[in-house]
Order: sequence, then structure tokens, then C-alpha cells
Amino acid sequence: MVKKGKFDLKIVREKLNSSLLSDVLDGMGIRHQCLVKGIRPTYPGAVVVGLAHTMLMVDIHEPEQDTFKLQLEGIDALKKDDLMVVASNGSTSAALWGELLSTAARCRGATGAVIDGLARDIRQIEEMKFPVFAVGFRPISSKGRVVAVGYGCRIKCGDVYVEEGDLVVGDIDGVTIVPDTAVEEAVDRALERANSERVTRKELLAGAKLSEVYAKYGTI
Amino acid sequence: MVKKGKFDLKIVREKLNSSLLSDVLDGMGIRHQCLVKGIRPTYPGAVVVGLAHTMLMVDIHEPEQDTFKLQLEGIDALKKDDLMVVASNGSTSAALWGELLSTAARCRGATGAVIDGLARDIRQIEEMKFPVFAVGFRPISSKGRVVAVGYGCRIKCGDVYVEEGDLVVGDIDGVTIVPDTAVEEAVDRALERANSERVTRKELLAGAKLSEVYAKYGTI
Amino acid sequence: MVKKGKFDLKIVREKLNSSLLSDVLDGMGIRHQCLVKGIRPTYPGAVVVGLAHTMLMVDIHEPEQDTFKLQLEGIDALKKDDLMVVASNGSTSAALWGELLSTAARCRGATGAVIDGLARDIRQIEEMKFPVFAVGFRPISSKGRVVAVGYGCRIKCGDVYVEEGDLVVGDIDGVTIVPDTAVEEAVDRALERANSERVTRKELLAGAKLSEVYAKYGTI
Amino acid sequence: MVKKGKFDLKIVREKLNSSLLSDVLDGMGIRHQCLVKGIRPTYPGAVVVGLAHTMLMVDIHEPEQDTFKLQLEGIDALKKDDLMVVASNGSTSAALWGELLSTAARCRGATGAVIDGLARDIRQIEEMKFPVFAVGFRPISSKGRVVAVGYGCRIKCGDVYVEEGDLVVGDIDGVTIVPDTAVEEAVDRALERANSERVTRKELLAGAKLSEVYAKYGTI
Amino acid sequence: MVKKGKFDLKIVREKLNSSLLSDVLDGMGIRHQCLVKGIRPTYPGAVVVGLAHTMLMVDIHEPEQDTFKLQLEGIDALKKDDLMVVASNGSTSAALWGELLSTAARCRGATGAVIDGLARDIRQIEEMKFPVFAVGFRPISSKGRVVAVGYGCRIKCGDVYVEEGDLVVGDIDGVTIVPDTAVEEAVDRALERANSERVTRKELLAGAKLSEVYAKYGTI
Amino acid sequence: MVKKGKFDLKIVREKLNSSLLSDVLDGMGIRHQCLVKGIRPTYPGAVVVGLAHTMLMVDIHEPEQDTFKLQLEGIDALKKDDLMVVASNGSTSAALWGELLSTAARCRGATGAVIDGLARDIRQIEEMKFPVFAVGFRPISSKGRVVAVGYGCRIKCGDVYVEEGDLVVGDIDGVTIVPDTAVEEAVDRALERANSERVTRKELLAGAKLSEVYAKYGTI
Repeated sequence: MVKKGKFDLKIVREKLNSSLLSDVLDGMGIRHQCLVKGIRPTYPGAVVVGLAHTMLMVDIHEPEQDTFKLQLEGIDALKKDDLMVVASNGSTSAALWGELLSTAARCRGATGAVIDGLARDIRQIEEMKFPVFAVGFRPISSKGRVVAVGYGCRIKCGDVYVEEGDLVVGDIDGVTIVPDTAVEEAVDRALERANSERVTRKELLAGAKLSEVYAKYGTI
Repeated sequence: MVKKGKFDLKIVREKLNSSLLSDVLDGMGIRHQCLVKGIRPTYPGAVVVGLAHTMLMVDIHEPEQDTFKLQLEGIDALKKDDLMVVASNGSTSAALWGELLSTAARCRGATGAVIDGLARDIRQIEEMKFPVFAVGFRPISSKGRVVAVGYGCRIKCGDVYVEEGDLVVGDIDGVTIVPDTAVEEAVDRALERANSERVTRKELLAGAKLSEVYAKYGTI
Repeated sequence: MVKKGKFDLKIVREKLNSSLLSDVLDGMGIRHQCLVKGIRPTYPGAVVVGLAHTMLMVDIHEPEQDTFKLQLEGIDALKKDDLMVVASNGSTSAALWGELLSTAARCRGATGAVIDGLARDIRQIEEMKFPVFAVGFRPISSKGRVVAVGYGCRIKCGDVYVEEGDLVVGDIDGVTIVPDTAVEEAVDRALERANSERVTRKELLAGAKLSEVYAKYGTI
Repeated sequence: MVKKGKFDLKIVREKLNSSLLSDVLDGMGIRHQCLVKGIRPTYPGAVVVGLAHTMLMVDIHEPEQDTFKLQLEGIDALKKDDLMVVASNGSTSAALWGELLSTAARCRGATGAVIDGLARDIRQIEEMKFPVFAVGFRPISSKGRVVAVGYGCRIKCGDVYVEEGDLVVGDIDGVTIVPDTAVEEAVDRALERANSERVTRKELLAGAKLSEVYAKYGTI
Repeated sequence: MVKKGKFDLKIVREKLNSSLLSDVLDGMGIRHQCLVKGIRPTYPGAVVVGLAHTMLMVDIHEPEQDTFKLQLEGIDALKKDDLMVVASNGSTSAALWGELLSTAARCRGATGAVIDGLARDIRQIEEMKFPVFAVGFRPISSKGRVVAVGYGCRIKCGDVYVEEGDLVVGDIDGVTIVPDTAVEEAVDRALERANSERVTRKELLAGAKLSEVYAKYGTI
Repeated sequence: MVKKGKFDLKIVREKLNSSLLSDVLDGMGIRHQCLVKGIRPTYPGAVVVGLAHTMLMVDIHEPEQDTFKLQLEGIDALKKDDLMVVASNGSTSAALWGELLSTAARCRGATGAVIDGLARDIRQIEEMKFPVFAVGFRPISSKGRVVAVGYGCRIKCGDVYVEEGDLVVGDIDGVTIVPDTAVEEAVDRALERANSERVTRKELLAGAKLSEVYAKYGTI
């Protein structure tokens, strides 16, 4: 896969974070890339970095309907360095992710999951250290309640458009989506910005006023 | 009390959890038993297991009204293995539970509290290790703000009907209500299901695809 | 500054908390002083105690507009024992507080920040142990998104009116605002109340029923 | 179609309404049959009476996706006395119904539409006197925005389960769903109840107190 | 009743409205007297003017519970020139007002009803020209669903405190509560203000700029 | 002003509407131009067509602050064919528009107002036939409650970006914003589309199935 050759996921994991990437995307004029505040790490310290593998789900109300077929097929399609990203049109009826799906996803090479919906088996997921972000928790199975309507498609997750292959970086501050086409430039810029922030911090720690630093550098 | 003879609360505490019980209730056709996502443990690791002792409260706006009489009488009525379950019609005006009520409830033999409303004294409650679930926290006393309108009645807590004596099991995944009439069967089934999940997990860890496991067992 | 002479912030920090102060304000007939439940510590154990330095912000939609000038001027105006209190009319578009602002505020002598809006750089803020309360987190910069419209003014933060110089006390239970004019009496009363609660607790631990204690003391 | 032989839709239209049917369903122990308050007539005087033909839709975010195929097939399947009932998982992104769909539906024999979502072409719909109920209005086409995921299935519309063939009666008070299996008895009971209300009204108009009437008849 | 002697309800009905009264209450420093926007006339042209007779209701979940006794007693207690004002803690489960209650209330001399909750029988209520304001409509009876917990008490309706005997004035702009103690002065001031607005309107119609009028009179 | 020479507002008023313009903007790839559903005509039949004159307002909480100066200056700046468009960051605290502002705006040549907030004096506004769209009504003056922070700027109104000079077309279906740069093409296309819809309608009225029409024309 050529795209993954374009930048180094390992460097992203070690040196960057959601806020740095958001700042440089702003500078590139790409301004709506951070998920809404409600999609949170399911355990302290969970960090997600990976290439989006998208899925769209929706609540149904036929308890006997087979809700697993397409969903499981979509999860089985995960590849190395992929990150599952699930949109659900605001479903709160059931958990769309849990321990067994985490186990299967990790075996395919996936690095985590971002669920714009609910999850369960949170204690086990923390023990596995498989990073999952979600809107909340509920003990209910999605069986007969929520069905996949597609995967690999463009979705709206946490109010941000996500496409298959976009870089996703999530940590305690939230989740930033870096569009596939902007990844290389964004990563380069973010590495630089990490350096310039160190200068600002040092001056502030030395007692400089914010207005002075702003006058000097034109930003904070 | 005959009902508590029907099953062993100790086994529920040690072997089961909210998700396992939700799954087996689904299998029994009892499908609306998990509280909404917003009712959460007030400290990490809090787990509630007990028999519901219900109370319904409501906001009032006469600061001088005696709001304690019926509420305290209802809490004093708690018995061994009971769990306080409070509905409040969405009250966010004051804390409906705190350290002193926890202290009194524990002395009566209660195992915890599930509050569809706010709580306070959260640091002290954690120190006591008295498990309380709530919608959120606020430092305000309920005195002159929220009054009990009844206890021992059928309530709607977290969008689920709860009756006096129902089994309540809550943990990090959320809270499941097992109706009194279904308790024995649900507990038996859940113990079995804990075993079958071990098999599935093992196959997935060995690299099986989800679709394969689903084809083999008809579920995940 | 005379006001700070009237009571000892150190004693407030060591002996009081948001719930005790809320209870005594109730007793003084000052009944709407606790922020709504959604404004929470950004890390476990964060406690804020200080004198409010207020700011009002608002979302704008001109990416090129200078959104920093007045905001930075307002933060530079922080003095010893001040606490930044920011209202934002429900903004969730960007983080209104982060590591660099925390660094600058601490250098001015500020003791923390209460943001009725979002924050970022949460890991770094926890490492600094600079206590910040916020509604949530998002990695997005406020640059070109949210602008200060004034500081030092009367604001509505978490549904409570806050004026420059009010005492703010926040902990895991939430945040209580003590109006400047009521501070001395409230602090004195709260120190007394801390004692009387010890008596009640002791009687409950000895097995007294809540109704008995209530009949005896007229409160809980 | 046998079912329509079991009762007379014309009598329902002329003599009954949503409130009478809700009251008799209550009396039969069928208690969750009225849609939430937000689904309203799109023009004054609009009344819907018909047999539910259900559809489930969901927001998608691929502008180029064909969103019409299944939806149009489902509408083309409408039969005489059917009423289109559309659930959308809270979609507010586009209008799911308009003038052209109304025109086509009427040509198939449909009596109206109940949309748990948005509609448009409201002036023309009023001119046609084709009764449509909806959550609100927006000028946006659903093309490339909202897609049908099934029709003829059990849906949840306005928080009520609706199945193909259920009787739907909507007017200014709201919309009541009469399950197919309860229709005959409910219609018979409602015709009787319309009579008994006349007696109560007469006594109240003659000056009787509500408490007296309640003591006499055991209801109001 | 002395209070009604203090001012003339007929003049309020003929010359004043909710906006004029709100403006003069502002001028008297009484600033939180208008209900939230969601409480609306149930039919075009409905206007309520009367003295508040308050009731507090709450959702319950015991279908067999007698929910009528206290409610009907409270309605039977309505007197000439009273206006029923019902708070419900956000109930949307059932209609708290309808045709039969309107009929009974009018026979007691009541001038209308303001319901912070739902209503039904809207067509009949319009035909009776009994002015009712409500949050919305639903065909469901409150029987076994919503119970009165008191009447004649201080309530919070539409986010405003209302006490027995306060003057209530509602029209298409909304509903203003004039506290009993401020009625005489507010009515006098409002009659004057109606005159001064005529001058401003005339100048604007003659082409004056708003800034000019504001500079001249110090208000708009 | 050259822009108004580019197309004829009179033709827009007579031949087009919000839905036709939304459809053609979709076809031009401009897809987020319709305000959210909650911004509605304040009286039946109100239609707004004009060039946006924008204003941003925000709630403040200093009753003595002069909130009128900038707001009135901004309204006085309205020119012929302008339409006032006000964003307020979700303010529901007071009415941002009323009869006197309508009177002044009409004298300047304005054609109406779209308020993403509340309005009052609705009966008088209807009598004047000055078309105003708003989120709701409340009798409260904005004096000392809501202040303008700018006008002529880019705002977000009803979740859509609006710039000074954009064409705004609102009717019972909602409000569509046509960006200044797309106006000429959009108006031309909309006039054509009005014709092609007539053909579709005719075929449907003649009994064609929707699927047939869709197969034939590739759209509905």
C-alpha cells in the first residue's frame, strides 16, 4: 500500500498528537477535522493512531433480523495499521463494539477503534490495552438492534467527514482526522510546530506576558 | 425473604456482570433492561449488586417545605442485600445522595445506590467504598429542593422500569435490571454463557475470522 | 487588596469544600451558587480555590479575525490568588484553554481556571498540576474561532452569575461561587458546619436511623 | 385484503380520533401507542387515517450514491388505503417527503404520510390536500443524503413501534398507532366511548365538580 | 378578595400585553418573569389573563395508581378570574389538560390554563375558545401516568417561579408573570409605556434613524 | 452596487423559492446552504427575499451595559433590498427583533429579517406584513441582555455560513442562502428547473410510477 509509505506511522505515534495536527491543518486551511467532544478514550491513557477503515451502522427494530453479516465482514476486512471508525447516526440503543470484536480486530492488525456510538466490555478492553474511543457504554448487545449498512464508505463521525484511509490520531484531547491527501504535509509541519511551541513555553516560563509573546511571534 | 433463597447473590457478584445478564435476558425475550448510558459509577471500580429498593423523587420550589421526612423514612426501610434505586424525573437541581445517606444505608445492610440524578461527597463515598452510580455531581443539598413522592413503587430509572425486589447489577459497562420473575433462569443462563464466550474468544485469538465463528456458532 | 484580608484562602483550601460552602450559603438564603453538573475537573484530584477573574467569549466565523488581542490582555491581567473564570455562551467549537495559557496564568499568580467551554493539552495540564475545570476537551485552537468580548465583567458561568472577585471553590463535587459580599460569614459558618457533620456521622455509624437524627437535629 | 374487511376505515375517519383510540388502547392494556409530540400536521386541518406502509431511512454522506432506488420502489408499492410511515433515525439533514412523492403516493391510493423526519413543498402539499405529518421542514433534497434501508419492516417512529398494516390515526392532537391485532376491538370500544364522554361533558356543563363526576363514574 | 380590587383585570385584558409588562418589570428591576419560548398558545389568537392557581405534577409509572384525586380537587378549587398554571418537571408522557378539564375550569370561573407540559382535545378547546397555552400536544390520557403532588404552592413553570395569585398575561409573544406584590405599579407603568411607544413609532415612521431616537430618548 | 445588477430580485420573488434554489445549488456542488429547521416564518405566508446584511450578537449579564449602540448603528446601515440576518450563538434570553426595529428597517429599504434567535411584537409584525423569520418568541427586551459584537461580518446562522451580500430566500419550506459568487448561475438554473419539474409532475399525475420516471430522467 503506497500511502503508508508516504509517512511513518511510528513517528506520528511517538512525536505527534491530536492538538498539534489540528493546529497545522488549520494553517493549511483545513478547518473541520476534530471530532465533537463526546467521543472519548474508554480507559485512561488510550491513544489511537491508524488509517481509517470506515463503517456506517443504523438502529433497526426487528429482533430477528440478521444484524451481524455485513458488520463482521467489514471487521474481517481490517488490515495492518487500520483503525476501525464507526458512525451510527447517534445510536445509543446498544454497544457497537466490545471485547470479542477487539480481539478479532487486533488479530487482523488493526490498531484500535473509534466508535461514534456505545461500547461494552470496557474492563476487558482496558486489560487488552486495545485502544477504543466511544461516546459511552451500555451492556446491551447490538444483535437484532444495530446493523451495518456499508463499510469503506465516506461517513460522518463526530460531525467530521472521514474517508477510508484518512489518518486518525486520538488521545486525551480528542480525535483529529487528517485527510489522506494532506497527510505528508501535515505530519512534516506538525513536527516543526512541536519545536516552535518549546520556544514559546520557555519564554512564558521566564515570565513573558502573553501579549508580548503574541506581538513577537504573531501567534500563541 | 424467600426470593433471596432462589439464587445466590454472592455468585452473581463473583461470576456475572451487566453485559452477560443483558445478553441472556435478550435470549429470554426480555429486551429493555439496561439503563441509559448516562448513569455511571461515581468512582473507578464501583460495582453494584443488590435487590432494588425503589424511590421516586421530584423537584419542588418551596425552600421552606420539609423535603426530608418521606425520603429518610424510605432509606431507613432498606434491608440486607437491598440496593437503593432512585428516580427523579430528570432532576439536576441538587444532589440526591451523599456521604451521610451512604453511611446510614450501609448500616441498614444496603449494598449500594443507583441514582437517576445527582450525587455529592464523592471523595468520601470513594473512601467508604460504598458503590454509588449517578448521572453527575453537584455540591447542592436537596433540602428544600427535591422531595420523595413514594418508595417501594414501580419507577422508571434510566428509561427502564424497575420494581421493588428486582435484581440490579451494575459495573463499568452500565446497569442491568433483572426482573424478579426472571432472576433464577437468567442467572443460570448467564453462568453457562460465560463458558461459551471463552470458547469464542479462544478461536478468535487463534486467528479465526468473525464471519467463520459466526457461521459456526450462529452468534458472536 | 483589602478583600483578601477579610478571610484566609489557605484555610479555605485546607478545611472547606464546595459542598460545605453550598450548604451554608443555602442557610444564608443565597441559593443559586453551584455551577451546573457539566463543568468538571480535567484530571483526578484537581481542586480550584481562588478569586474570580472573569472573561466572556463568543464564537466568531471569520478565520482571519484577530481573536487573541483582548483575550491575552485579560489573561495578562491575572493577579496573585486569582482564578480565571471563562463563560462562552455554550461554545464547543474550540478549546478556550490549554498548556500555554496555564503556564502564563501561573506565572501571574493565578491558582487555576474554570472554563464553561472546552480545553486541550490535558496531559500537560495534569503534569503541571495547574487545576483546570472544563465542560470537555477538543484538540482545536480557538484562533480565528472564539474571541473575548470583555473581562472583569459580570458573567453567567455554568448557569450561575459570577462577578470579579467572588470566591470560587471547586472539587470533585463541583464548583461553588461565594459572592464577595458573603465570603466572611460563609467561611465562618462552613468551618462550624464541618464540626456538626462529624457528630451526625458518628451517630449514624453507631446505628441511628436517619429519621431519628433528623428528629433530633432538624437536619441531616 | 382480509384485514381491511374487519373494520370500516370510513367510520374511523368520520367518528374517531387519535385521543379516543389512545384511551381505549389504554383500557386494553396497550399503553405506548402515541407518537412523540414533535410529529405534527404540515398544514392546519390535516388528518391522516390509513394502514401503515413502513420505511426505514438513514443519513449517508456519499453525494454520488444512488439514494433513490429502494425508496422509490417502496413508495411505488403503496396500495389503496395505505399510509406511508417513514422512520429516519432522527435525520434532519434533508426533506424525506415532498410534492412529487405526494403526487405519486396519491396515485397509488395512499391516504397520506407520517414522516419521522423533515418534509418540503409544504405550500403545494397543502394545496393538494394530501395530509402529511412531519417533524419539521427544510428545503433540501434527500438526493445523496438519505437512503432507504428497507420497507415493509417493523420500525420505531416517534418512539412507537409500527408494523406494516397497523392502523394509523393522526390529527391535531397527535398520532395513535393501533396494532393490527387490536384494531377491531379498539374501534368498537372507541365508538362506545365517544358516547360516554358526551354524558360527562353534559354534567360538567351543568356545573358538576370534577371530583363528583369522578366519584360517580370512576373516570373522567 | 382584596388583591383583585387593587387593579382592574379588564383593563389589563384590553390595553396591555406580555411585552409591555415585561418591559416595565425590567424597569422595576424584576428581570426573570417571562416563560421560556416553548409554552405556546394552543390556537391562533388565544390570550390568557388571570390570577395564577398553581399545580405541580409528576410522571409516575404505576398504571393502577389513582392519579386523579388531588388533580381534580385542585381544579375544583379554581375561582373567578383564576388561571390554571401547571408545572410538570418536563413531562411529555401524556396530556395534562383537555376539553373536559377546560369545561370544568370555565364553570368555576377560570379564564384559561398555562401548562408546562402537553395538552389534547385541541380542536374542541379552540371551538370552546377557552385559552390554553402548552408545550405541545399528544393524544394520551394522564390517567395512571402523571399525578398532582400539590396545588396552591410555589412552582417553577417555564423556568419562572410562579406563586398563587400572581398576575399571568400571555399572548402570541409569550407569557409574563407579574408578582402579586408588583402588580399595581407594573400595570400603571405599562399603561404609560404604551403611550410613549406610540411617539417612538411615529418618529421612526417619519424616517428617523434608530440611533437618533435612542440618543433622544435613551431607549427604544 | 454592481451585484444587484447581475440578476433581478423581482424575478426571484415571483418565480423561485427556497427548495428550487437548494436543488440547483446541490447540482453546482454547493451543498450546505439551507438553515436548520428551527428558523421559521413568524406568521403564515411570510416570505423573505433579499441581500444579507449580517449581525452577530451575544448574551451578556450586566443589566446596566449599553446594549443598543452598535446594534442600532448596524440596523441604520441597512440599504434598499437588504435583509437583516442575525446570529446570536443560540440566545434564548430575549427577543432580538420586534415591531420598532421592523419599522426602522423598512424605512431604510430592508425587505425583512432572519433571526437565529427570538422575536416579539409578532401580532404587530404580521399587521405590518414585514416578513420576519425567527427561532421562537418571548416578550423580553434585549436591553441589558444581548449585545451586537459586529455587523457586516461572516456569521453562522442556522448552521450555515452567511456573508454580507449573499442572496437569502425564505418561505414555508425554510431558508436557502445563495452565495454572492453563485447567484447568477443559481438563479438561471432554478428558472430552468421549475420547468422540468412541471414535466415530472404531469407524468406522475398521469399514473407513472416513481421508478419509471427515475429511470427515464435520472432524478425526481
